[in-house]
Amino acid sequence: MSINSATFLVAAPDQPGLVARLAGFFYGAGLNIVDASNHTDLFDEGGPRFFMRLNIDLAGLSSPTATAALGGSATRSALEASFGALCTALSAEWSLRYSDDVAKLAILVTRDPACLYDLVLRQRAGEIACEIPLIISNHPTLEGVARSFQIPFYCLPVTAATKAEQERQVLELLKRHHVDLVVLARYMQILSEDFLTSAPSVINIHHGFLPAFQGAKPYHQAYSRGVKLVGATAHYATRDLDQGPIIEQDVARVTHAMGPDDMARVGRDVERLVLSRAVRAHLERRVIIAGRRTVVL
Amino acid sequence: MSINSATFLVAAPDQPGLVARLAGFFYGAGLNIVDASNHTDLFDEGGPRFFMRLNIDLAGLSSPTATAALGGSATRSALEASFGALCTALSAEWSLRYSDDVAKLAILVTRDPACLYDLVLRQRAGEIACEIPLIISNHPTLEGVARSFQIPFYCLPVTAATKAEQERQVLELLKRHHVDLVVLARYMQILSEDFLTSAPSVINIHHGFLPAFQGAKPYHQAYSRGVKLVGATAHYATRDLDQGPIIEQDVARVTHAMGPDDMARVGRDVERLVLSRAVRAHLERRVIIAGRRTVVL
Amino acid sequence: MSINSATFLVAAPDQPGLVARLAGFFYGAGLNIVDASNHTDLFDEGGPRFFMRLNIDLAGLSSPTATAALGGSATRSALEASFGALCTALSAEWSLRYSDDVAKLAILVTRDPACLYDLVLRQRAGEIACEIPLIISNHPTLEGVARSFQIPFYCLPVTAATKAEQERQVLELLKRHHVDLVVLARYMQILSEDFLTSAPSVINIHHGFLPAFQGAKPYHQAYSRGVKLVGATAHYATRDLDQGPIIEQDVARVTHAMGPDDMARVGRDVERLVLSRAVRAHLERRVIIAGRRTVVL
Amino acid sequence: MSINSATFLVAAPDQPGLVARLAGFFYGAGLNIVDASNHTDLFDEGGPRFFMRLNIDLAGLSSPTATAALGGSATRSALEASFGALCTALSAEWSLRYSDDVAKLAILVTRDPACLYDLVLRQRAGEIACEIPLIISNHPTLEGVARSFQIPFYCLPVTAATKAEQERQVLELLKRHHVDLVVLARYMQILSEDFLTSAPSVINIHHGFLPAFQGAKPYHQAYSRGVKLVGATAHYATRDLDQGPIIEQDVARVTHAMGPDDMARVGRDVERLVLSRAVRAHLERRVIIAGRRTVVL
Repeated sequence: MSINSATFLVAAPDQPGLVARLAGFFYGAGLNIVDASNHTDLFDEGGPRFFMRLNIDLAGLSSPTATAALGGSATRSALEASFGALCTALSAEWSLRYSDDVAKLAILVTRDPACLYDLVLRQRAGEIACEIPLIISNHPTLEGVARSFQIPFYCLPVTAATKAEQERQVLELLKRHHVDLVVLARYMQILSEDFLTSAPSVINIHHGFLPAFQGAKPYHQAYSRGVKLVGATAHYATRDLDQGPIIEQDVARVTHAMGPDDMARVGRDVERLVLSRAVRAHLERRVIIAGRRTVVL
Repeated sequence: MSINSATFLVAAPDQPGLVARLAGFFYGAGLNIVDASNHTDLFDEGGPRFFMRLNIDLAGLSSPTATAALGGSATRSALEASFGALCTALSAEWSLRYSDDVAKLAILVTRDPACLYDLVLRQRAGEIACEIPLIISNHPTLEGVARSFQIPFYCLPVTAATKAEQERQVLELLKRHHVDLVVLARYMQILSEDFLTSAPSVINIHHGFLPAFQGAKPYHQAYSRGVKLVGATAHYATRDLDQGPIIEQDVARVTHAMGPDDMARVGRDVERLVLSRAVRAHLERRVIIAGRRTVVL
Repeated sequence: MSINSATFLVAAPDQPGLVARLAGFFYGAGLNIVDASNHTDLFDEGGPRFFMRLNIDLAGLSSPTATAALGGSATRSALEASFGALCTALSAEWSLRYSDDVAKLAILVTRDPACLYDLVLRQRAGEIACEIPLIISNHPTLEGVARSFQIPFYCLPVTAATKAEQERQVLELLKRHHVDLVVLARYMQILSEDFLTSAPSVINIHHGFLPAFQGAKPYHQAYSRGVKLVGATAHYATRDLDQGPIIEQDVARVTHAMGPDDMARVGRDVERLVLSRAVRAHLERRVIIAGRRTVVL
Repeated sequence: MSINSATFLVAAPDQPGLVARLAGFFYGAGLNIVDASNHTDLFDEGGPRFFMRLNIDLAGLSSPTATAALGGSATRSALEASFGALCTALSAEWSLRYSDDVAKLAILVTRDPACLYDLVLRQRAGEIACEIPLIISNHPTLEGVARSFQIPFYCLPVTAATKAEQERQVLELLKRHHVDLVVLARYMQILSEDFLTSAPSVINIHHGFLPAFQGAKPYHQAYSRGVKLVGATAHYATRDLDQGPIIEQDVARVTHAMGPDDMARVGRDVERLVLSRAVRAHLERRVIIAGRRTVVL
């Protein structure tokens, strides 16, 4: 798709006419809806809640209809102001991303190359639309991988004593490279609440089928409990470790014949698939966080 | 859900403003959209084609807004006429089903009870919303099952010589019982083109992963080809045997250690799941036929 | 298979020559091995542990070779004594089941018919080889189902006050009907340690992907945690609730669009499949309990 | 596992005592069986056929027992001669691979890097035990990938006119590098019967769920047929295109919302998984070809 488009995400208390009013806004402004989907969660604690994703072709922004509808000046900021006013009237939260504003993704790793290779290769194959301006690690192990793809690699070792300072350096790198999304691709460090407050969105891959097997060594836990499936979970990182909103999960079958290392091998394939699906969904602006849950439209 | 609702299915050549105009129609008539989803198929042979499903709360039909919008008489037929006019303007095909018009389902079987039990039990559990006024078979084997659920059972044996007459009797039963959907739950007869032309929608379960293993004895074919997965396919029956639009498919893993009978046993579970999902999707008015394909919204 | 066979299960500390000595035992006695499989668990806490399943054709028991090898009297008890002596020499635990000694299965239920129907239909279809001499429930709801299959139904209501007495009655029924295996097919009662000590093997289906979502209302837990898969777990019941050795697990995909009831519907299909696979594996003598884990050969 | 071991594969007409005699052979020679599995195919056209895999610890080869059993000289060739004699007596076909004889794998590619990266990364991670002495392509596209892993890359373009000569060059490279296994990792050329006769084992990945969607453009075929799952098949290449014995298959779910390119993207993940599982099974000597089928022990 080479068209210029904008993706709007909306979450609002359910009320009559939402689909019509949101779709009508764009129609009235001469802007075509390329793709739309919506969901009403009847079980939300705060009452029924409405979620919608609208992907809008911006070509119509230069039409007289748009100029008239948006108050004489059919610019992106006029569009945002006008849509914002509608959302205020609907008590809706909303966000917006333009397709020509390519997301910048920072990958944080430690020593395991599987997820790193997977993400970079998908980006190169055009499967996930983003730039990867940098890779950050607390170990030098994967520098060669970064170099083979000509991606700047920053090695920032960390100890208990230097953790605060190292996180400050990571944050500075994220800011300097205008990073929109941080992906923890088997980054074996727990991020502080301070870091998470200052950082952009952070997606983590947990090598367990959450909420089972939280914490360390999930494959050893899985072996010793004798489960017949192992899984992986991609979730937004929050201050509560392994408790963030889940974006995607999957599992693979294991048998009594597999030890912890075999489970880790099988699980590694699941981790890569799950992480890449979650990153792709996020970059396509399909994910809305709703409390401890996500809506993936 | 005990609300009275109507589900509209629409298929039209893609054009700007479709979501807004369709959603706006109901909003303008004071009718709330409970659920909406849409899809544009860019690869359709006749050019991009738009599909939409709208589930509408009919409570608003008694409001002054509805009365005004629908020309003074807010009845179901006024709603249909008005929506029909819009669809004509959009060159759209459409269909409609009211939630209080409970679908009547006829199950056709031969000797295998698995799919029959599965459908009846799901209907009794409220998983699929329909009535089952009759079961028709070409063998007496399953009469006891029908009786245990108090469903009338018609045994209409068939031979090459009596096929035309037997199909005529089946059609008469379908008409007499106002049947909306015929489910071939392992009915081991090929239906004639004449029958299919006169009958309501017919869903068949094929015990193979179509388009592989068309025709007879798919599990024997699968064994002898040495595949590692067996599957099942639920599709609308058309004059071209095993070629109708696919609604749902699934597979299960098999191994070298399984003979044709083991594959049939494993496959039977897939058949039941696939058939019930297809019937449920059809009854919830989620399926639109688009040439040889289906859109399941 | 209409041959008379015996299935031996063996667990022993790993040591050289185990396969050869166990297989050689039967070969030396003129008894053919129909099927054999084995596994060595290198990670067992007590050191590497060997597990083997041998399915033996008993036809050779009438041969002179057998008579000679088994000390002049080739009876089943001579076979058992001789094999037992070998196992003692190998420090092995073992068990044995003859194919003509058809297992007797008691199904315990409360109100949900899905798993009950599933098990009975599979037994009638020959998928699981057993007799079902009785169904026991703490509610009268499913009596009609039992009657439609001509299976005696015992309704034994239970309250906190009568629990000990009710369990005593259940145990008496199990004994009177020579029950080998108890299946808790959504029996909504927690069995006491006393009961489990006295009862034969008990298989339970838990409607959650253990160890996640232990305890009550797993589908509500799953919804509120926002998981993307729901599952079910069949395990041997032990005094530690939801902690028994897992025999089989599986999952199905759910989405944000599903409330707890939809998850329960999807999960119900998984429950039935998982429970029936576990019961089948147990009845085919494929399962060896190894601490908190199972080996399924 | 750093032990020296040998893996024997045996296929024979079924006959009494096979497990005992094969296991007994090694026990009698003082050689421990690390792992053994077997299968009897009752449906083989030539009558019931027995398959066995035995993984043998070679440490015992230096023991007096081995020396005595193998005729005074406990060498590998004595072991082979002795086992060969037993197999002749049993009318068995057999093969053997020593763990210290590391397999040499040649990867043939065209332009798609996904399967190439996947195989190389798994080899580097120790998931598949082999050397990769060379990569051969008919296009220069992937030379950089080969170089980033320090693997020699041979670019041998091919046209209809040069096909015979190019295949001769490929065969020469395979011979010069002592290649044991050729993997067609999306090599977009049909190999001639002559080539296949002269080459070592060749594993191909077909991006369709065979036997459906044979031939070219399987994802376009899948889209236009409207299937709900796409798959991939790893098989041994034979003179009959897409007809070779299947080693492994898997599928992924697709929807009406996916065009052929989306199906290709989803399918690519399946291809990689399926190909790597097949290569791993082959390298672990788990696969026995049995006519058009495979037994994977």
